[in-house]
Amino acid sequence: MTPIEIALEEARAAAARGEVPVGAVVTDPAGAVLGRAGNRVEELHDPTAHAEILALRAAAAARRSPRLPDCTLTVTLEPCPMCAQAASFFRVRRVVFGAYDPKGGGVEHGARIFQAASCHHAPEVVGGVREAECAGLLRDFFARLR
Amino acid sequence: MTPIEIALEEARAAAARGEVPVGAVVTDPAGAVLGRAGNRVEELHDPTAHAEILALRAAAAARRSPRLPDCTLTVTLEPCPMCAQAASFFRVRRVVFGAYDPKGGGVEHGARIFQAASCHHAPEVVGGVREAECAGLLRDFFARLR
Repeated sequence: MTPIEIALEEARAAAARGEVPVGAVVTDPAGAVLGRAGNRVEELHDPTAHAEILALRAAAAARRSPRLPDCTLTVTLEPCPMCAQAASFFRVRRVVFGAYDPKGGGVEHGARIFQAASCHHAPEVVGGVREAECAGLLRDFFARLR
Repeated sequence: MTPIEIALEEARAAAARGEVPVGAVVTDPAGAVLGRAGNRVEELHDPTAHAEILALRAAAAARRSPRLPDCTLTVTLEPCPMCAQAASFFRVRRVVFGAYDPKGGGVEHGARIFQAASCHHAPEVVGGVREAECAGLLRDFFARLR
């Protein structure tokens, strides 16, 4: 499976748990998975338990290092400002995401974290990967809630 | 002790552990402490283990709720964009901070999280409380490292 396929799998598993379906994975240059997670905000009653934060923490624990300078964070949704800043702090080389998030995103929208003067490490960014599939999961999830 | 005094105590304890001296506390309208923490980035090898995130999580756990709409987050340093966005997600009513952080801050500087279009809850902000004391702790800490 490619990283975005792993992230999609995590997003689907999150939906099955009643969580907003966002999934993330951290991979090394060889494609090995260092950390993977879905959203666990509801389960943990913790609004910081976004998929990206959990996957980054797991990867840092696996590496026994707070820095992941050769790694890629792949996530089904454009990271929010909190997760974008976290990705910068973990020094990831690249952030790949699926769906764009004009309302809550912090990479290509809103606070545009990596472009702020206070951002000391800006990863490469690739957006729109498997966009329709990633956005579709979110659309279906919210449609079912209504 | 006032909230900023508790935050300063946490910052001093962080310095004693070899951490960048930043401390935070979450209080309810009566001034009761729901969560307090110092920076634990080095100890936990986790760049998301900022004082604010740890104090907010502890407060939410104490309340058994991910939302803290009547609470104040008091911290010795202007929150970074990650922590500012977390404070917004936890829906705190007010953010009080000591020292301003032109290089890494995300409230009055850089990404200015609470002013971004993607910020759906902007707490009241009071900056510069016991500023000299809060900034002095950081200055002394970094002077000793050199």
